Amino acid sequence: MSDVKVKVGILGASGYTGAELVRILAHHAAAEITLLTADRRAGRPFGEVFPHLAHLKLPTMIRIEDADWSMVDVIFCALPHGTTQEVIAGLPGHVKVVDLSADFRLFDAATYKEWYGAEHAAQDLQKEVVYGLTELHREKIKKARVVANPGCYPTPVQLSLVPLLEQKLVHADDIIIDAKSGVTGAGRSPKEGILYAEVTEGIHAYGTGGHRHAPEIEQGLAWAAGQDVVVNFSPHLMPMSRGILESIYVKMTEGTTAEDIQAALEKRYADEPFVRVLPFGTTPQTRHVRGSNYVLIGVVKDRVPGRVIIVAVEDNLVKGASGQAVQNMNVMLGLPETMGLEIEPLFP
Amino acid sequence: MSDVKVKVGILGASGYTGAELVRILAHHAAAEITLLTADRRAGRPFGEVFPHLAHLKLPTMIRIEDADWSMVDVIFCALPHGTTQEVIAGLPGHVKVVDLSADFRLFDAATYKEWYGAEHAAQDLQKEVVYGLTELHREKIKKARVVANPGCYPTPVQLSLVPLLEQKLVHADDIIIDAKSGVTGAGRSPKEGILYAEVTEGIHAYGTGGHRHAPEIEQGLAWAAGQDVVVNFSPHLMPMSRGILESIYVKMTEGTTAEDIQAALEKRYADEPFVRVLPFGTTPQTRHVRGSNYVLIGVVKDRVPGRVIIVAVEDNLVKGASGQAVQNMNVMLGLPETMGLEIEPLFP
Amino acid sequence: MSDVKVKVGILGASGYTGAELVRILAHHAAAEITLLTADRRAGRPFGEVFPHLAHLKLPTMIRIEDADWSMVDVIFCALPHGTTQEVIAGLPGHVKVVDLSADFRLFDAATYKEWYGAEHAAQDLQKEVVYGLTELHREKIKKARVVANPGCYPTPVQLSLVPLLEQKLVHADDIIIDAKSGVTGAGRSPKEGILYAEVTEGIHAYGTGGHRHAPEIEQGLAWAAGQDVVVNFSPHLMPMSRGILESIYVKMTEGTTAEDIQAALEKRYADEPFVRVLPFGTTPQTRHVRGSNYVLIGVVKDRVPGRVIIVAVEDNLVKGASGQAVQNMNVMLGLPETMGLEIEPLFP
Amino acid sequence: MSDVKVKVGILGASGYTGAELVRILAHHAAAEITLLTADRRAGRPFGEVFPHLAHLKLPTMIRIEDADWSMVDVIFCALPHGTTQEVIAGLPGHVKVVDLSADFRLFDAATYKEWYGAEHAAQDLQKEVVYGLTELHREKIKKARVVANPGCYPTPVQLSLVPLLEQKLVHADDIIIDAKSGVTGAGRSPKEGILYAEVTEGIHAYGTGGHRHAPEIEQGLAWAAGQDVVVNFSPHLMPMSRGILESIYVKMTEGTTAEDIQAALEKRYADEPFVRVLPFGTTPQTRHVRGSNYVLIGVVKDRVPGRVIIVAVEDNLVKGASGQAVQNMNVMLGLPETMGLEIEPLFP
Repeated sequence: MSDVKVKVGILGASGYTGAELVRILAHHAAAEITLLTADRRAGRPFGEVFPHLAHLKLPTMIRIEDADWSMVDVIFCALPHGTTQEVIAGLPGHVKVVDLSADFRLFDAATYKEWYGAEHAAQDLQKEVVYGLTELHREKIKKARVVANPGCYPTPVQLSLVPLLEQKLVHADDIIIDAKSGVTGAGRSPKEGILYAEVTEGIHAYGTGGHRHAPEIEQGLAWAAGQDVVVNFSPHLMPMSRGILESIYVKMTEGTTAEDIQAALEKRYADEPFVRVLPFGTTPQTRHVRGSNYVLIGVVKDRVPGRVIIVAVEDNLVKGASGQAVQNMNVMLGLPETMGLEIEPLFP
Repeated sequence: MSDVKVKVGILGASGYTGAELVRILAHHAAAEITLLTADRRAGRPFGEVFPHLAHLKLPTMIRIEDADWSMVDVIFCALPHGTTQEVIAGLPGHVKVVDLSADFRLFDAATYKEWYGAEHAAQDLQKEVVYGLTELHREKIKKARVVANPGCYPTPVQLSLVPLLEQKLVHADDIIIDAKSGVTGAGRSPKEGILYAEVTEGIHAYGTGGHRHAPEIEQGLAWAAGQDVVVNFSPHLMPMSRGILESIYVKMTEGTTAEDIQAALEKRYADEPFVRVLPFGTTPQTRHVRGSNYVLIGVVKDRVPGRVIIVAVEDNLVKGASGQAVQNMNVMLGLPETMGLEIEPLFP
Repeated sequence: MSDVKVKVGILGASGYTGAELVRILAHHAAAEITLLTADRRAGRPFGEVFPHLAHLKLPTMIRIEDADWSMVDVIFCALPHGTTQEVIAGLPGHVKVVDLSADFRLFDAATYKEWYGAEHAAQDLQKEVVYGLTELHREKIKKARVVANPGCYPTPVQLSLVPLLEQKLVHADDIIIDAKSGVTGAGRSPKEGILYAEVTEGIHAYGTGGHRHAPEIEQGLAWAAGQDVVVNFSPHLMPMSRGILESIYVKMTEGTTAEDIQAALEKRYADEPFVRVLPFGTTPQTRHVRGSNYVLIGVVKDRVPGRVIIVAVEDNLVKGASGQAVQNMNVMLGLPETMGLEIEPLFP
Repeated sequence: MSDVKVKVGILGASGYTGAELVRILAHHAAAEITLLTADRRAGRPFGEVFPHLAHLKLPTMIRIEDADWSMVDVIFCALPHGTTQEVIAGLPGHVKVVDLSADFRLFDAATYKEWYGAEHAAQDLQKEVVYGLTELHREKIKKARVVANPGCYPTPVQLSLVPLLEQKLVHADDIIIDAKSGVTGAGRSPKEGILYAEVTEGIHAYGTGGHRHAPEIEQGLAWAAGQDVVVNFSPHLMPMSRGILESIYVKMTEGTTAEDIQAALEKRYADEPFVRVLPFGTTPQTRHVRGSNYVLIGVVKDRVPGRVIIVAVEDNLVKGASGQAVQNMNVMLGLPETMGLEIEPLFP
């Protein structure tokens, strides 16, 4: 590859996903960070906001209005949900975009409005956006200019169920997803609910029956099933900085066995560098993917006849956000897909 | 009440449930601890094993063979599973027993053998044992000599589902229980899997599809449903010393609404001191029962038509073990049921 | 005692120390809560802010301006530092006050101004205030109308060193206090620095060389030493909701041995219900006082000749705040000092 | 560099430091792992013991007796203390060794015997061993065949104090080191004291006044000071998997200021890739080095005249063990010192 590196900008660099992008891109052989924006912290060095990366040579954070778009080839957009549509719509055409917000994840305008309470502000742009679950939409991502990076919760469940729904191995109308998430999914803005003393040593459900990632999951599963899908999606918040574990309870179609489920997933992901199907009957731990771009999937027999349990884990900040974003960039630019992402999990 | 206190012995006092019994009984107005056994630690003062209670006046721990049963009116048996049957069978008849082990929880000998891999060693005694989920079996407990204290996992789910199954508000053949447990449920004996560095900052499923509490849950639900019940019971281990949260996914019978579920539970537990049904649509946190004997239950609508979500929490060492054991003792002795248990949750 | 209970008001009830006061007073045999104020949350039930106590019968929280002072005999003032002076100065004379803020802890006006950057606003009132470290100032507290409840950090170190300085067993000019604190000491108002993901799995020093509890410590030690004292006080923040551990490094005076230090502390606290000196050479854990009003002190020989190490722990919300406040109320009212405080530590 | 990679063996690969060596060496450009031993787990694949690294291609673990030493150029020895001396003495002369145990860290046989209670079993070999604190002994390490990798605690304190003692900026006879450590320092063998429920949400001192790392610290400081040194070293165990923070309290020599201390450390480490001195008056967090080979040092003024506070952090498994071991290997082999170690900290 040539010595000229891809110039990368990160919009909204002062949040956790911004820091993760910097961590990953710092050792990316074909990219260099040339732009960092952070409105509230403009003018401050990045290392003041994230001292663990203070030794890196990085541009000072500026306000988004002060950005010179000619300096960048690719933008990672890690802005808060809702502010993103106009920013991306206003970018010059030469800039490729991976959007980590939720703003372009829902492809049906009515669904967007139902869940976000406002009209989508860039409906034309939405038409050219590609949904960036890399393993499932790689061919489209190769040609995309704007990729909507999936939400943290939707990634493991789609990787687990899309192959099964495509092959009609499980029923589309009886899907229960019990998710357990770490706290960084809620961002870095101070709120009482994510204070240390409110989170440690306990667990609770939240957004039960009404979390905004539900329609995104349903959209992806509907594409696979070829029919509308409504899921039970029940997230829980637990004391863990990084990580999501999803326990997925599904009913198999007539004649399908748990072993068939295992075989279908193994076959589907045999050549994927970041998705690993564990030996039949074993289940994964979030700790074993911490800091890495891996998704681990385990399949277990259910004692209830006709049912099967799938347990999947990821690091919500890596495969669930910044890691998959870099993976998508690699695909968009024709670079080796694993470039910059060959980072081992940190355990313990 | 008279000044003569009930004499209480604790067999297996050096584990976490033993320490909890001591903590609770230390301020029980009608009971005093006169016997503590702990085989490996016999001869050592209790406060050396549990320094947080070193200021209490307590008998020195002795070996079980050295116990003088005339010293006790009531025994709490917190011995490891499997060793208990012969010990209890050998106690003199004047001694009332609350057994915290699993040895007498399964009332069908074949089921016991299936899950524990050996014949039950005290099948005659089993016939007089009463299952000690206090709120559900209070009348029988009043007359019992030996009570099998429920497992930690079976308590919240039975409290949640028994009234609904009795009234045929939910289907008995489509029950999924996704449980998240703290670490003390695994006891205090050192094992790699419960080391700090192996547990903190992560979560994993374990015993998926084959945990020994499944048959106990099924037994209790079958009693309520009047039919055999097979459940999906999927426990998870998470970084939390105390606490269990169960997310229970069930299908309602024709014509039943989530509001009916709420109403049925509210009515059932209106006068119960330790079971609280939260306002409709809200869900509980394990932190809010830590250290106390409360069970909190929340009912939430499911987006999937015909389904409902119930979330229940307890402290596994209190209502899930030692607290309910004292509650049962109170009932067996005709004492006020809440005596010694008026302990507020410790938050944060 | 008579059936007429003391009427208690809590100003600033929506913080952690407010919740602790409610937890403790809920089972106080001689007191009842008749007033709760919380400006931002006025009009809301207490159980909405602290669901773990939602089952208690409590007055609705009101704004401080709406308080009817004739309803209360005693006020616990848990308002933010700086707002308290005028509130307390404005209370009617029949109301006894235990102030949990820092506003009346420094008895020298110049020192107050140096550390808080403003003139003290109630200097006349300051003159009648008594410093409420119960074990050290009990006689004065008995006659006090207004008690300044000590800070969380100053409590264990004064209990450890005051007897030694009074008896000239240690030098007053070579005192190093390395303190490790849980997070609730920083309150419940959301700030980035106390978010779960910023606190878990790590430790850092803060306020090194300039924490506002330093002058309070120095004041108390100076009273004991009969000379000015300047200490090295270095607090650290660590992942723990409750608890403070202080490692205190001091130089003994000529001829003094570590055993003398042990003996002096044992003698001083032999009859104190809440202060326990551990066996010589052993050190305490914060876990062993969690939720209780105990302070544990351990004395250890230093390998460096002439030096000794003292390690002391408390629960910062109990003996370090609300527990000691209730202890002070008991003393002020002539009630048994331990009333309401006979709560065992919660371990694990 | 040539394509022929250095062949590396890891003895005792099934512990945490073994796993860290694998994590780091997996991406080392000039080394490949050709031998893994683990006595109790011989015959099992490494990925079964450490599932987070199961995707790596690694040799199956064997018993040490079955090792073919001709297969390796370099050995990392991560065996338990005490078993190492004979193993290393028995290795063929072509094998370079980095020993992560304590067996060769103390260069005085009498001191070794005093602290370990037995004669050193390889005193001849000891004479050729080089102490492997890379930044301080680099020139000797270049020529060494056997390097004693420093203990986790001794590393940050020596980096902090050696330059100051060499330049007589601080007194050698008044050094207090209050250390706070994560749990992995105690290894992976199950013990009650490192169970999750015994460690979470609390802190305690241990080995106060008698920890085996004290003589190693004193040895290194004595080399720098040119005189015997006795330190107060007080370690504490806290809920953190990785990380050590040391708060170091020292007295400056006449005429020295805290700013001089800062300048001396800045100058000493200006060109070091892994040691960073923070801006004057700021202190580091363990979280900011997690998973990386960095040591961060902060210098703060003490309110006590003539004293200064130094706070230093490291990841005990990286710079405190396996990272520094690889750094030493690089130096011994003439490779770039940072090779394989360019791993960013993982925060949060």
